[in-house]
Amino acid sequence: MIYPETINDLIECYKKFPGIGEKNAERMALYTLELGQEVIDLFVQALKKSKKNIKRCQICNNFSENDICTICANENRNKNIICVVEEPKNVYQFEKIGSYHGLYHVLDGLISPLENVNPDDINISNLLKRIETDDIKEVIIAVKPSVEGETTALYISKILEKKNVIISKIAHGVPLGADMDYVDSLTLELALEERKNITCNHE
Amino acid sequence: MIYPETINDLIECYKKFPGIGEKNAERMALYTLELGQEVIDLFVQALKKSKKNIKRCQICNNFSENDICTICANENRNKNIICVVEEPKNVYQFEKIGSYHGLYHVLDGLISPLENVNPDDINISNLLKRIETDDIKEVIIAVKPSVEGETTALYISKILEKKNVIISKIAHGVPLGADMDYVDSLTLELALEERKNITCNHE
Repeated sequence: MIYPETINDLIECYKKFPGIGEKNAERMALYTLELGQEVIDLFVQALKKSKKNIKRCQICNNFSENDICTICANENRNKNIICVVEEPKNVYQFEKIGSYHGLYHVLDGLISPLENVNPDDINISNLLKRIETDDIKEVIIAVKPSVEGETTALYISKILEKKNVIISKIAHGVPLGADMDYVDSLTLELALEERKNITCNHE
Repeated sequence: MIYPETINDLIECYKKFPGIGEKNAERMALYTLELGQEVIDLFVQALKKSKKNIKRCQICNNFSENDICTICANENRNKNIICVVEEPKNVYQFEKIGSYHGLYHVLDGLISPLENVNPDDINISNLLKRIETDDIKEVIIAVKPSVEGETTALYISKILEKKNVIISKIAHGVPLGADMDYVDSLTLELALEERKNITCNHE
């Protein structure tokens, strides 16, 4: 062990994060020693609070410091539309766009028969309850275009079939600004299948 | 502010680290919520200790949890040779090689007339004291090959001129495994100047 124990402990902690390898963890640990006392204090408090203060919203299951998250509690949001996502972090991705003003529903996973994740294992029953009790007009399914994502989307559309609600799915295709050379063939196949008619009709 | 306050605080802390941008800080903050209680506890303790427990070795100025660092206190190290480095992190770089068994001396900076860093502002006087009191036979200057590095190396070799000690400097040149296409011209110039004769003499 070439580092003092405290530095070693910091390295071990930083290494737990995704995308932080040995070298980056070492750099971060050594940089920690240069942080001011007030940053260290804020850091320690935020870490402690992360386990204690962050719970899930009782309505949409998003991260929240209160029983109801700020989105569900916001009177200005459109309460007739729900965007269904896999994880809380997806909520923030959509919030960053700034143009979606509806509500969310966090599934906390996707149905995966291969990994033994059944519909009961994810937060689908609460979605059904929301559709039944609230005035929901549209459910947008915004999960990733994988086997699990498609299975989950199909399952949700099935159980909501008889409810008077529009089910939609976000578009998949070639991302904006992508270099065509680097788009994989599955994405291209999807983009081809879901092509849009742009004919100009001069009648 | 789209994130709950606790998550926002974590993002602000992670963003302080070099190489961690907004996006990575967000990813790390969200991942923090998934860490186990024991990791959070270790993390909190290590952060608190980082300010309290890590001091500088009274001999070499390296990071240490005691008055004298483990390297200076190690009886098996070669006490006749000192490797002079800019920062504590450089010590660990040399320790990783595993083949250097001498001592170190951390300058905590390099002489830079442009940035008003004079010899008195860095830890050179203690180096002189060590040469005068301990049985030092060689001083290896291992600082980066910049104007500041060269100035510092020259200054140290000047003040040690009259002492009975060998002064050396680590070699600069093309790094191992480097693609010649990507080696910058200053490095190439240095590599050319410091070329070694490898003539086979068949006498």
